[in-house]
Amino acid sequence: MTLTLKDPLDMHLHLRDKDMLKNIAKYSSKNFSGALIMPNLLPPITSIDALNRYKNEIIDITKDDNFTPYMTLFFQQYSYEFLEKIKDDIIAIKLYPAGVTTNSKNGISNFDLEYLRPTLDAMSRLGIVLCVHGESNGFVMDREQEFCKIYEKLASNFPKLKIIMEHITTKDSVDLLDRYENLFATITVHHLLITLDDVIGGSLDPHLFCKPIAKRQEDKEALLKVALNAHKKVMFGSDSAPHPRDSKEAPGCAAGIFTAPIALQMLSELFDNHNSLSNLQPFISDNAKNIYNIRASKKEIVLKKEEFIIEKSYDGVVPMWANKSLKWKIIS
Amino acid sequence: MTLTLKDPLDMHLHLRDKDMLKNIAKYSSKNFSGALIMPNLLPPITSIDALNRYKNEIIDITKDDNFTPYMTLFFQQYSYEFLEKIKDDIIAIKLYPAGVTTNSKNGISNFDLEYLRPTLDAMSRLGIVLCVHGESNGFVMDREQEFCKIYEKLASNFPKLKIIMEHITTKDSVDLLDRYENLFATITVHHLLITLDDVIGGSLDPHLFCKPIAKRQEDKEALLKVALNAHKKVMFGSDSAPHPRDSKEAPGCAAGIFTAPIALQMLSELFDNHNSLSNLQPFISDNAKNIYNIRASKKEIVLKKEEFIIEKSYDGVVPMWANKSLKWKIIS
Repeated sequence: MTLTLKDPLDMHLHLRDKDMLKNIAKYSSKNFSGALIMPNLLPPITSIDALNRYKNEIIDITKDDNFTPYMTLFFQQYSYEFLEKIKDDIIAIKLYPAGVTTNSKNGISNFDLEYLRPTLDAMSRLGIVLCVHGESNGFVMDREQEFCKIYEKLASNFPKLKIIMEHITTKDSVDLLDRYENLFATITVHHLLITLDDVIGGSLDPHLFCKPIAKRQEDKEALLKVALNAHKKVMFGSDSAPHPRDSKEAPGCAAGIFTAPIALQMLSELFDNHNSLSNLQPFISDNAKNIYNIRASKKEIVLKKEEFIIEKSYDGVVPMWANKSLKWKIIS
Repeated sequence: MTLTLKDPLDMHLHLRDKDMLKNIAKYSSKNFSGALIMPNLLPPITSIDALNRYKNEIIDITKDDNFTPYMTLFFQQYSYEFLEKIKDDIIAIKLYPAGVTTNSKNGISNFDLEYLRPTLDAMSRLGIVLCVHGESNGFVMDREQEFCKIYEKLASNFPKLKIIMEHITTKDSVDLLDRYENLFATITVHHLLITLDDVIGGSLDPHLFCKPIAKRQEDKEALLKVALNAHKKVMFGSDSAPHPRDSKEAPGCAAGIFTAPIALQMLSELFDNHNSLSNLQPFISDNAKNIYNIRASKKEIVLKKEEFIIEKSYDGVVPMWANKSLKWKIIS
């Protein structure tokens, strides 16, 4: 039994920079037709120069793989003129609340409309999508739920702005999708598979530690429902976030789960287990193409229902479920 | 400024066995007058022979420290005759629900009264205290709350049985203290100091990973209230649980926080910070003596308000807050 995925897209990806970029970009560029690249480097991507330098570096590393990096800027106050100049080089601008995740200290701590309005109005008029890491600085299990009121404020005040709720993890976020026309969401593969119980309920697994943290069973079920049905407003975004083994398996363990090399195989197994294989194509590609107006048609990935053992490590980065067996493998 | 603690008692302690016991028993025996020793070895302590062997081993290792190990049995169905024979050798029997923590697979999965009644009736009649690890097998943040109904069932059906809710972590458990005359509780030092945010809210800290997991701010505040006021039904129990560094700083990290060498210093700082130093004596000793009818008066520990740096490791075991500075040190 085989499955052909046309133009799989990863609409939320961390490629990092320097050696890490060189080592791990291939795991995305081989399996995906394109990916939306996060701008939270140190320093974050906020200028045309930095954006182009980063884009060219990615293209250079992945040039043999027919892969498109969809670039993003790190949200800050930008002028209309600047955004007009850069708009064809980016697919979206990513907003991080200050301090909520890796390399987000330059993020936003002021969510007053008057502070945000000039930039968001300009984005609205220019048709630039806003991607948001939606977490408050509150208690770890409440952060996304607490952020929902900001999603609602943004969605209702900027009705022409497409807003992507990134890597949603709660039923509350899922519920917002049908309440605001301009709200969309990415969902990771790990949040479709685990709850907090998998992270800390038995023994502690640092390789399942990420932000936003996995939540409750009822949250996972709400995510599964829209993903498996390929709800038109959700799309796949891995949030695959590579950290060297040393920075995961020690006190001070960094947040992030590495799934780039295994996401398609895991999703195939998951959708297959739920008799929803036919909905994987829209979830992994078509919905994103519609939401972002992506026209590229470049690549087919073929998977076969055959055992695949996840590697223990990919270039020094330990993946989710290292050494476990999956039921689907990529054959071409 | 100095503080003299008379007969500090740790009413919930894991000393383990073999090399670990030899290495770490001293950290409790030097600082405490006595401790209630957990029976969850492999295999668990369920016979007079095993109990005496373990007790003698502890006494042999700690013989120079004027330290009393208060021994416990691992709960299972026991006859009245057996309990009558062993009652002077134990201070309590510890009940673990099956599978909820380290070495608990032989615990109880049947909480029907008819199954438990013969043993609990015998304990009631013989005046043997029941210590309980109160967690269900549910979602990690709900386990203790879900267990409250079992505490209530036990407390109301066995009104003469003293029941200790071990290492309580939630406001719900605190609230039960005043509702059932025969319910008591131990509280750890770590649950007075951290919430889930400290474990997984920023980076991930395996050395703060324990069961029950630390909960919310409002739970911590409820615990602090009864501890700092030295509520007569609560007493200190460290739940200090040593694991070798290798089994903490790796995937599959074991649950347990090691605080034996630093608990008194941390508690002194905490009670001092809250202007409650005078309540540390009842919390650390007097309440336990009253609840358990302990008469021993053997040891005084003197602390001074002076900087103390927590070691990075104690015989290969990484403590809570390794290398951090505390404001109180033990001087004799």
